[in-house]
Amino acid sequence: MDIVRDDETLDDLNLNELKVIQKKKSFRFAIDAVLLAHFATIKNKDKIIDLGTGTGVIPLIMQTRAEDLKITGIEIQSQMAEMARRTLTFNKLNNIEIVESDLNLLDTSFNQQYNLVVSNPPYFPLNEGRISPLREVAIARHEIKCNLQQIVKTAKRLIKGKGRFALIHRAERLGEIINECYKVGLEPKRVQAIYPNLKSEANLVLVEALKDGGSGIKFLKPLIVYDEKGNYTKELLEIYNGGGR
Amino acid sequence: MDIVRDDETLDDLNLNELKVIQKKKSFRFAIDAVLLAHFATIKNKDKIIDLGTGTGVIPLIMQTRAEDLKITGIEIQSQMAEMARRTLTFNKLNNIEIVESDLNLLDTSFNQQYNLVVSNPPYFPLNEGRISPLREVAIARHEIKCNLQQIVKTAKRLIKGKGRFALIHRAERLGEIINECYKVGLEPKRVQAIYPNLKSEANLVLVEALKDGGSGIKFLKPLIVYDEKGNYTKELLEIYNGGGR
Repeated sequence: MDIVRDDETLDDLNLNELKVIQKKKSFRFAIDAVLLAHFATIKNKDKIIDLGTGTGVIPLIMQTRAEDLKITGIEIQSQMAEMARRTLTFNKLNNIEIVESDLNLLDTSFNQQYNLVVSNPPYFPLNEGRISPLREVAIARHEIKCNLQQIVKTAKRLIKGKGRFALIHRAERLGEIINECYKVGLEPKRVQAIYPNLKSEANLVLVEALKDGGSGIKFLKPLIVYDEKGNYTKELLEIYNGGGR
Repeated sequence: MDIVRDDETLDDLNLNELKVIQKKKSFRFAIDAVLLAHFATIKNKDKIIDLGTGTGVIPLIMQTRAEDLKITGIEIQSQMAEMARRTLTFNKLNNIEIVESDLNLLDTSFNQQYNLVVSNPPYFPLNEGRISPLREVAIARHEIKCNLQQIVKTAKRLIKGKGRFALIHRAERLGEIINECYKVGLEPKRVQAIYPNLKSEANLVLVEALKDGGSGIKFLKPLIVYDEKGNYTKELLEIYNGGGR
Protein backbone atom coordinates (compact mmCIF):
# COMPACT_ATOMS: atom_id res chain seq x y z
CA MET A 1 0.00 0.00 0.00
CA ASP A 2 1.33 3.43 -0.87
CA ILE A 3 2.37 5.56 2.06
CA VAL A 4 0.81 8.60 0.37
CA ARG A 5 -2.76 8.10 -0.87
CA ASP A 6 -4.58 9.47 -3.87
CA ASP A 7 -6.46 12.11 -1.92
CA GLU A 8 -3.26 13.30 -0.24
CA THR A 9 -0.22 15.40 -1.09
CA LEU A 10 3.34 15.10 0.14
CA ASP A 11 4.59 18.56 1.05
CA ASP A 12 8.16 19.66 1.53
CA LEU A 13 8.99 21.54 4.73
CA ASN A 14 12.22 22.98 3.27
CA LEU A 15 13.90 21.76 6.41
CA ASN A 16 16.19 18.74 6.66
CA GLU A 17 14.31 17.17 3.71
CA LEU A 18 11.28 16.64 5.92
CA LYS A 19 7.97 16.01 4.23
CA VAL A 20 4.38 16.15 5.51
CA ILE A 21 1.45 14.13 4.25
CA GLN A 22 -1.73 16.19 4.01
CA LYS A 23 -5.21 15.60 2.62
CA LYS A 24 -5.88 17.60 -0.52
CA LYS A 25 -9.32 18.67 0.67
CA SER A 26 -9.18 18.92 4.42
CA PHE A 27 -7.31 20.77 7.13
CA ARG A 28 -3.82 21.72 5.93
CA PHE A 29 -1.19 23.23 8.19
CA ALA A 30 -0.48 26.93 7.90
CA ILE A 31 2.18 29.41 8.91
CA ASP A 32 0.88 29.40 12.49
CA ALA A 33 2.14 25.90 13.18
CA VAL A 34 5.56 26.72 11.73
CA LEU A 35 5.85 29.87 13.83
CA LEU A 36 4.91 28.07 17.02
CA ALA A 37 7.37 25.24 16.34
CA HIS A 38 10.14 27.83 16.06
CA PHE A 39 9.00 30.06 18.93
CA ALA A 40 8.81 27.62 21.83
CA THR A 41 11.88 27.38 24.05
CA ILE A 42 13.37 23.90 23.53
CA LYS A 43 16.28 22.31 25.35
CA ASN A 44 18.16 19.09 24.68
CA LYS A 45 16.47 16.01 26.20
CA ASP A 46 13.14 17.79 26.61
CA LYS A 47 10.00 15.71 26.72
CA ILE A 48 7.43 17.59 24.68
CA ILE A 49 3.72 17.14 24.03
CA ASP A 50 1.65 18.80 21.30
CA LEU A 51 -2.06 19.09 22.08
CA GLY A 52 -4.04 18.69 18.85
CA THR A 53 -1.15 17.82 16.59
CA GLY A 54 -3.16 17.39 13.36
CA THR A 55 -0.74 16.50 10.56
CA GLY A 56 2.08 16.28 13.11
CA VAL A 57 3.89 19.20 11.54
CA ILE A 58 4.77 20.86 14.87
CA PRO A 59 6.60 17.80 16.32
CA LEU A 60 8.23 17.31 12.92
CA ILE A 61 9.78 20.78 12.96
CA MET A 62 10.52 20.83 16.69
CA GLN A 63 12.56 17.62 16.59
CA THR A 64 15.14 19.48 14.47
CA ARG A 65 15.71 22.15 17.11
CA ALA A 66 17.52 20.23 19.85
CA GLU A 67 19.07 16.84 20.66
CA ASP A 68 17.51 13.78 22.28
CA LEU A 69 13.95 15.02 22.32
CA LYS A 70 10.94 12.81 22.94
CA ILE A 71 7.81 14.28 21.42
CA THR A 72 4.21 13.12 21.73
CA GLY A 73 1.45 14.43 19.49
CA ILE A 74 -2.11 14.12 20.78
CA GLU A 75 -4.80 13.99 18.12
CA ILE A 76 -8.48 13.31 18.63
CA GLN A 77 -9.30 12.50 15.01
CA SER A 78 -8.32 8.96 14.10
CA GLN A 79 -7.81 9.62 10.38
CA MET A 80 -5.53 12.55 11.16
CA ALA A 81 -3.60 10.52 13.74
CA GLU A 82 -3.17 7.68 11.26
CA MET A 83 -1.96 10.08 8.56
CA ALA A 84 0.48 11.76 10.97
CA ARG A 85 1.89 8.31 11.80
CA ARG A 86 2.50 7.66 8.10
CA THR A 87 4.33 11.01 7.93
CA LEU A 88 6.61 9.83 10.74
CA THR A 89 7.22 6.53 8.98
CA PHE A 90 7.98 8.32 5.74
CA ASN A 91 10.54 10.56 7.49
CA LYS A 92 11.97 7.63 9.46
CA LEU A 93 11.50 9.41 12.78
CA ASN A 94 11.21 7.30 15.89
CA ASN A 95 11.44 9.98 18.60
CA ILE A 96 7.88 11.14 17.94
CA GLU A 97 4.74 9.23 18.78
CA ILE A 98 1.15 10.05 17.94
CA VAL A 99 -1.49 9.23 20.54
CA GLU A 100 -5.10 9.22 19.44
CA SER A 101 -7.04 10.78 22.30
CA ASP A 102 -9.28 13.57 23.43
CA LEU A 103 -6.88 15.91 25.23
CA ASN A 104 -9.43 16.32 28.01
CA LEU A 105 -9.37 12.59 28.65
CA LEU A 106 -5.64 11.92 28.84
CA ASP A 107 -5.13 9.54 31.75
CA THR A 108 -3.15 10.43 34.85
CA SER A 109 0.00 8.71 33.56
CA PHE A 110 0.50 11.87 31.44
CA ASN A 111 0.52 14.13 34.52
CA GLN A 112 3.69 16.15 35.09
CA GLN A 113 5.64 14.30 32.43
CA TYR A 114 6.58 17.12 30.03
CA ASN A 115 9.12 19.94 29.99
CA LEU A 116 7.15 21.64 27.26
CA VAL A 117 3.50 21.55 26.24
CA VAL A 118 2.61 23.24 22.94
CA SER A 119 -0.65 23.83 21.13
CA ASN A 120 -1.95 25.45 17.97
CA PRO A 121 -5.56 25.12 19.10
CA PRO A 122 -8.89 25.73 17.37
CA TYR A 123 -9.14 29.52 17.02
CA PHE A 124 -12.88 30.14 17.13
CA PRO A 125 -15.57 29.78 19.80
CA LEU A 126 -18.66 28.02 18.54
CA ASN A 127 -20.62 31.25 18.20
CA GLU A 128 -18.06 32.92 15.98
CA GLY A 129 -17.38 32.46 12.27
CA ARG A 130 -18.77 29.91 9.87
CA ILE A 131 -18.32 26.30 10.93
CA SER A 132 -16.87 24.24 8.09
CA PRO A 133 -19.09 21.47 6.67
CA LEU A 134 -15.93 19.33 6.53
CA ARG A 135 -15.84 17.70 9.96
CA GLU A 136 -12.02 17.54 10.16
CA VAL A 137 -11.68 21.21 9.31
CA ALA A 138 -14.46 22.19 11.69
CA ILE A 139 -12.77 20.40 14.60
CA ALA A 140 -9.43 22.01 13.77
CA ARG A 141 -10.86 25.53 13.53
CA HIS A 142 -13.71 25.66 16.02
CA GLU A 143 -13.81 24.83 19.71
CA ILE A 144 -15.94 21.75 19.17
CA LYS A 145 -13.82 19.16 20.97
CA CYS A 146 -11.86 21.46 23.28
CA ASN A 147 -11.71 25.12 24.22
CA LEU A 148 -8.96 27.46 25.36
CA GLN A 149 -9.70 26.97 29.05
CA GLN A 150 -9.46 23.19 28.73
CA ILE A 151 -6.18 23.41 26.83
CA VAL A 152 -4.57 25.66 29.44
CA LYS A 153 -5.83 23.43 32.25
CA THR A 154 -4.50 20.32 30.51
CA ALA A 155 -1.16 22.02 29.83
CA LYS A 156 -0.79 22.84 33.51
CA ARG A 157 -1.56 19.25 34.44
CA LEU A 158 1.02 17.78 32.03
CA ILE A 159 3.92 20.14 32.80
CA LYS A 160 6.78 18.71 34.82
CA GLY A 161 8.64 20.91 37.35
CA LYS A 162 9.21 24.43 36.08
CA GLY A 163 8.12 23.45 32.59
CA ARG A 164 6.72 25.61 29.82
CA PHE A 165 3.52 25.98 27.84
CA ALA A 166 3.66 27.65 24.43
CA LEU A 167 0.79 28.37 22.12
CA ILE A 168 -0.18 30.43 19.12
CA HIS A 169 -3.63 31.95 18.94
CA ARG A 170 -5.56 34.86 17.51
CA ALA A 171 -4.25 38.13 18.98
CA GLU A 172 -7.83 38.95 19.82
CA ARG A 173 -7.76 36.25 22.49
CA LEU A 174 -4.61 37.39 24.29
CA GLY A 175 -6.62 38.64 27.28
CA GLU A 176 -8.32 35.29 27.74
CA ILE A 177 -5.05 33.41 27.30
CA ILE A 178 -3.32 35.42 30.00
CA ASN A 179 -6.33 35.20 32.27
CA GLU A 180 -6.58 31.41 31.91
CA CYS A 181 -2.85 31.05 32.49
CA TYR A 182 -3.01 33.08 35.70
CA LYS A 183 -6.00 31.08 36.88
CA VAL A 184 -4.00 27.83 36.85
CA GLY A 185 -0.70 29.30 38.02
CA LEU A 186 1.11 29.57 34.69
CA GLU A 187 2.99 32.86 34.37
CA PRO A 188 3.22 34.38 30.86
CA LYS A 189 6.92 35.03 30.25
CA ARG A 190 7.38 35.54 26.49
CA VAL A 191 4.94 37.15 24.08
CA GLN A 192 5.33 37.93 20.40
CA ALA A 193 2.73 39.73 18.33
CA ILE A 194 2.44 38.81 14.65
CA TYR A 195 1.38 41.55 12.26
CA PRO A 196 0.41 40.83 8.61
CA ASN A 197 2.30 44.03 7.78
CA LEU A 198 3.50 47.22 9.47
CA LYS A 199 0.20 49.02 8.97
CA SER A 200 -2.09 46.27 10.25
CA GLU A 201 -3.36 45.13 13.57
CA ALA A 202 -1.75 41.99 14.95
CA ASN A 203 -3.79 38.94 13.97
CA LEU A 204 -1.81 36.30 15.84
CA VAL A 205 0.09 36.09 19.06
CA LEU A 206 2.65 33.65 20.44
CA VAL A 207 2.70 33.16 24.20
CA GLU A 208 4.99 31.09 26.39
CA ALA A 209 4.11 30.64 30.05
CA LEU A 210 6.09 29.10 32.85
CA LYS A 211 4.88 27.03 35.76
CA ASP A 212 5.78 28.85 38.99
CA GLY A 213 7.55 31.59 37.03
CA GLY A 214 8.03 35.02 38.56
CA SER A 215 6.13 37.83 36.88
CA GLY A 216 7.54 39.84 33.97
CA ILE A 217 7.00 39.42 30.24
CA LYS A 218 9.69 39.55 27.60
CA PHE A 219 7.75 41.12 24.74
CA LEU A 220 9.68 40.09 21.64
CA LYS A 221 10.25 42.26 18.58
CA PRO A 222 7.33 42.52 16.18
CA LEU A 223 7.02 39.66 13.71
CA ILE A 224 5.96 41.18 10.40
CA VAL A 225 4.75 38.68 7.78
CA TYR A 226 4.66 40.74 4.58
CA ASP A 227 6.70 43.73 3.45
CA GLU A 228 5.18 46.78 1.75
CA LYS A 229 5.29 45.00 -1.61
CA GLY A 230 3.32 42.03 -0.32
CA ASN A 231 6.29 39.65 -0.27
CA TYR A 232 7.28 37.64 2.77
CA THR A 233 9.73 39.55 4.96
CA LYS A 234 13.29 38.32 5.32
CA GLU A 235 12.74 37.26 8.92
CA LEU A 236 9.68 35.23 8.00
CA LEU A 237 11.53 33.47 5.20
CA GLU A 238 14.32 32.64 7.63
CA ILE A 239 11.83 30.93 9.91
CA TYR A 240 10.14 29.17 7.00
CA ASN A 241 13.44 27.91 5.78
CA GLY A 242 14.16 26.25 9.04
CA GLY A 243 16.62 28.72 10.39
CA GLY A 244 16.70 31.76 12.35
CA ARG A 245 15.89 32.19 15.93
CA MET B 1 4.74 86.74 41.26
CA ASP B 2 5.87 85.09 38.07
CA ILE B 3 3.76 82.19 36.90
CA VAL B 4 6.94 80.34 35.89
CA ARG B 5 9.63 80.20 38.55
CA ASP B 6 13.41 80.26 38.33
CA ASP B 7 13.82 76.54 38.86
CA GLU B 8 11.20 75.77 36.18
CA THR B 9 10.95 75.71 32.41
CA LEU B 10 8.00 76.45 30.18
CA ASP B 11 7.82 73.77 27.51
CA ASP B 12 5.92 73.91 24.25
CA LEU B 13 3.65 70.95 23.45
CA ASN B 14 3.54 71.82 19.72
CA LEU B 15 -0.20 71.51 20.02
CA ASN B 16 -2.67 74.42 20.03
CA GLU B 17 0.08 76.62 21.54
CA LEU B 18 -0.18 74.73 24.81
CA LYS B 19 2.68 75.03 27.25
CA VAL B 20 3.65 72.98 30.31
CA ILE B 21 5.51 74.20 33.36
CA GLN B 22 8.12 71.71 34.58
CA LYS B 23 10.85 71.77 37.19
CA LYS B 24 14.31 71.82 35.69
CA LYS B 25 15.61 69.17 38.07
CA SER B 26 12.72 66.91 38.90
CA PHE B 27 10.27 64.63 37.16
CA ARG B 28 9.65 65.79 33.59
CA PHE B 29 7.04 64.28 31.33
CA ALA B 30 8.13 61.91 28.60
CA ILE B 31 6.79 60.39 25.43
CA ASP B 32 4.70 57.92 27.46
CA ALA B 33 2.30 60.59 28.67
CA VAL B 34 1.85 61.95 25.15
CA LEU B 35 1.17 58.49 23.73
CA LEU B 36 -1.41 57.70 26.39
CA ALA B 37 -3.17 61.05 25.89
CA HIS B 38 -3.55 60.22 22.20
CA PHE B 39 -4.37 56.54 22.63
CA ALA B 40 -7.36 56.64 24.98
CA THR B 41 -10.80 56.60 23.37
CA ILE B 42 -12.38 60.00 24.06
CA LYS B 43 -15.90 61.13 23.23
CA ASN B 44 -17.50 64.55 23.43
CA LYS B 45 -18.82 65.42 26.90
CA ASP B 46 -16.75 62.73 28.58
CA LYS B 47 -15.87 63.15 32.22
CA ILE B 48 -12.26 62.02 32.55
CA ILE B 49 -9.94 61.47 35.49
CA ASP B 50 -6.14 61.09 35.38
CA LEU B 51 -4.66 59.15 38.29
CA GLY B 52 -1.25 60.62 39.15
CA THR B 53 -1.35 63.54 36.75
CA GLY B 54 2.07 65.01 37.65
CA THR B 55 2.63 68.10 35.49
CA GLY B 56 -0.94 67.77 34.16
CA VAL B 57 0.31 67.10 30.65
CA ILE B 58 -2.16 64.27 29.98
CA PRO B 59 -5.29 66.36 30.71
CA LEU B 60 -3.72 69.20 28.76
CA ILE B 61 -3.38 67.12 25.61
CA MET B 62 -6.63 65.20 26.06
CA GLN B 63 -8.76 68.36 26.26
CA THR B 64 -7.86 69.07 22.61
CA ARG B 65 -9.29 65.75 21.42
CA ALA B 66 -13.03 66.26 21.88
CA GLU B 67 -15.67 68.85 22.85
CA ASP B 68 -17.13 69.67 26.24
CA LEU B 69 -14.82 67.51 28.31
CA LYS B 70 -14.44 67.78 32.06
CA ILE B 71 -11.09 66.49 33.22
CA THR B 72 -9.80 65.93 36.74
CA GLY B 73 -6.15 65.29 37.51
CA ILE B 74 -5.33 63.58 40.79
CA GLU B 75 -1.89 64.29 42.19
CA ILE B 76 -0.55 63.23 45.57
CA GLN B 77 2.41 65.63 45.64
CA SER B 78 1.36 69.14 46.63
CA GLN B 79 4.20 70.92 44.80
CA MET B 80 3.37 69.06 41.61
CA ALA B 81 -0.35 69.77 42.00
CA GLU B 82 0.35 73.46 42.57
CA MET B 83 2.62 73.62 39.52
CA ALA B 84 0.03 71.83 37.36
CA ARG B 85 -2.56 74.41 38.46
CA ARG B 86 -0.25 77.20 37.30
CA THR B 87 0.05 75.43 33.95
CA LEU B 88 -3.73 75.48 33.64
CA THR B 89 -3.85 79.17 34.55
CA PHE B 90 -1.13 79.93 32.03
CA ASN B 91 -3.07 78.12 29.28
CA LYS B 92 -6.38 79.68 30.40
CA LEU B 93 -8.07 76.31 30.69
CA ASN B 94 -11.04 76.01 32.99
CA ASN B 95 -12.34 72.56 32.07
CA ILE B 96 -9.52 70.84 33.96
CA GLU B 97 -9.15 70.72 37.71
CA ILE B 98 -6.29 69.37 39.78
CA VAL B 99 -7.17 67.59 43.02
CA GLU B 100 -4.38 66.98 45.50
CA SER B 101 -5.02 63.53 46.93
CA ASP B 102 -3.75 60.03 47.39
CA LEU B 103 -5.60 58.08 44.71
CA ASN B 104 -6.24 55.33 47.23
CA LEU B 105 -8.07 57.77 49.48
CA LEU B 106 -10.44 59.45 47.04
CA ASP B 107 -13.78 59.73 48.83
CA THR B 108 -16.92 57.97 47.65
CA SER B 109 -18.19 61.06 45.83
CA PHE B 110 -15.74 60.08 43.06
CA ASN B 111 -17.35 56.64 42.63
CA GLN B 112 -18.78 55.89 39.20
CA GLN B 113 -18.40 59.47 37.98
CA TYR B 114 -16.10 59.04 34.99
CA ASN B 115 -16.46 57.81 31.42
CA LEU B 116 -12.71 57.45 31.20
CA VAL B 117 -10.00 56.84 33.77
CA VAL B 118 -6.40 57.16 32.57
CA SER B 119 -3.06 56.63 34.25
CA ASN B 120 0.64 56.78 33.44
CA PRO B 121 1.59 55.15 36.74
CA PRO B 122 4.91 54.53 38.48
CA TYR B 123 6.61 51.81 36.41
CA PHE B 124 8.74 49.99 38.97
CA PRO B 125 7.98 47.83 42.00
CA LEU B 126 10.02 48.80 45.04
CA ASN B 127 12.41 45.90 44.62
CA GLU B 128 13.35 46.79 41.06
CA GLY B 129 15.67 49.48 39.74
CA ARG B 130 17.40 52.29 41.58
CA ILE B 131 15.11 54.55 43.60
CA SER B 132 15.83 58.20 42.86
CA PRO B 133 17.17 60.31 45.73
CA LEU B 134 14.84 63.05 44.47
CA ARG B 135 11.58 62.37 46.29
CA GLU B 136 9.34 63.68 43.48
CA VAL B 137 11.09 61.54 40.90
CA ALA B 138 11.06 58.50 43.17
CA ILE B 139 7.29 58.76 43.70
CA ALA B 140 6.69 59.16 39.98
CA ARG B 141 8.85 56.18 39.01
CA HIS B 142 8.51 53.70 41.85
CA GLU B 143 5.42 52.18 43.44
CA ILE B 144 5.93 54.07 46.68
CA LYS B 145 2.52 55.70 47.02
CA CYS B 146 0.48 53.35 44.86
CA ASN B 147 0.91 50.13 42.93
CA LEU B 148 -0.63 48.65 39.79
CA GLN B 149 -3.24 46.67 41.68
CA GLN B 150 -4.43 49.76 43.56
CA ILE B 151 -4.64 51.80 40.37
CA VAL B 152 -6.74 49.18 38.58
CA LYS B 153 -9.00 48.82 41.60
CA THR B 154 -9.44 52.59 41.85
CA ALA B 155 -10.10 52.84 38.12
CA LYS B 156 -12.85 50.25 38.40
CA ARG B 157 -14.43 52.14 41.30
CA LEU B 158 -14.44 55.49 39.47
CA ILE B 159 -15.77 54.31 36.11
CA LYS B 160 -19.37 55.17 35.28
CA GLY B 161 -21.53 52.72 33.32
CA LYS B 162 -19.66 51.02 30.50
CA GLY B 163 -16.74 53.38 30.91
CA ARG B 164 -13.10 52.85 29.99
CA PHE B 165 -9.73 52.62 31.69
CA ALA B 166 -6.60 53.38 29.68
CA LEU B 167 -3.03 53.16 30.84
CA ILE B 168 0.52 53.01 29.57
CA HIS B 169 3.02 50.79 31.31
CA ARG B 170 6.16 48.77 30.74
CA ALA B 171 5.44 45.94 28.28
CA GLU B 172 7.00 43.63 30.83
CA ARG B 173 3.97 44.13 33.05
CA LEU B 174 1.29 43.34 30.48
CA GLY B 175 0.49 40.03 32.16
CA GLU B 176 -0.11 41.68 35.52
CA ILE B 177 -2.17 44.46 33.93
CA ILE B 178 -4.48 42.00 32.21
CA ASN B 179 -4.70 39.84 35.31
CA GLU B 180 -5.59 42.79 37.56
CA CYS B 181 -8.16 44.01 35.04
CA TYR B 182 -9.85 40.61 34.91
CA LYS B 183 -9.86 40.41 38.70
CA VAL B 184 -12.01 43.54 39.00
CA GLY B 185 -14.18 42.89 35.93
CA LEU B 186 -12.48 45.20 33.45
CA GLU B 187 -12.11 43.58 30.03
CA PRO B 188 -9.00 44.53 28.01
CA LYS B 189 -10.28 45.65 24.61
CA ARG B 190 -7.46 47.58 22.90
CA VAL B 191 -3.75 46.90 23.18
CA GLN B 192 -0.85 48.57 21.41
CA ALA B 193 2.75 47.52 21.81
CA ILE B 194 5.44 50.20 21.50
CA TYR B 195 8.80 49.17 20.10
CA PRO B 196 11.88 51.44 20.22
CA ASN B 197 12.61 50.16 16.70
CA LEU B 198 11.75 47.24 14.44
CA LYS B 199 14.52 45.05 15.82
CA SER B 200 13.82 45.58 19.52
CA GLU B 201 11.55 44.10 22.07
CA ALA B 202 8.54 46.21 23.02
CA ASN B 203 9.34 48.36 26.05
CA LEU B 204 5.94 49.94 26.55
CA VAL B 205 2.36 48.91 26.10
CA LEU B 206 -0.90 50.82 25.92
CA VAL B 207 -4.01 49.06 27.22
CA GLU B 208 -7.64 50.13 27.24
CA ALA B 209 -10.14 48.08 29.22
CA LEU B 210 -13.90 48.31 29.35
CA LYS B 211 -16.21 47.78 32.28
CA ASP B 212 -18.54 44.90 31.45
CA GLY B 213 -17.06 44.58 27.97
CA GLY B 214 -17.31 41.30 26.09
CA SER B 215 -14.03 39.52 25.49
CA GLY B 216 -11.85 40.17 22.44
CA ILE B 217 -8.81 42.41 22.04
CA LYS B 218 -8.19 44.75 19.14
CA PHE B 219 -4.40 44.54 18.94
CA LEU B 220 -3.39 47.74 17.16
CA LYS B 221 -0.58 48.06 14.62
CA PRO B 222 2.93 48.23 16.04
CA LEU B 223 4.00 51.67 17.21
CA ILE B 224 7.65 52.07 16.25
CA VAL B 225 9.46 55.01 17.85
CA TYR B 226 12.69 55.28 15.85
CA ASP B 227 13.49 54.36 12.25
CA GLU B 228 16.65 52.53 11.22
CA LYS B 229 18.57 55.83 11.17
CA GLY B 230 17.61 56.63 14.76
CA ASN B 231 15.16 59.40 13.83
CA TYR B 232 11.59 59.51 15.08
CA THR B 233 9.25 57.66 12.72
CA LYS B 234 6.65 59.58 10.78
CA GLU B 235 3.83 58.12 12.82
CA LEU B 236 5.45 59.14 16.07
CA LEU B 237 6.02 62.69 14.84
CA GLU B 238 2.36 62.86 13.85
CA ILE B 239 1.35 61.99 17.39
CA TYR B 240 3.89 64.39 18.87
CA ASN B 241 2.59 67.16 16.67
CA GLY B 242 -0.89 66.75 17.98
CA GLY B 243 -2.38 64.93 15.08
CA GLY B 244 -2.87 61.56 13.84
CA ARG B 245 -4.62 58.59 15.23
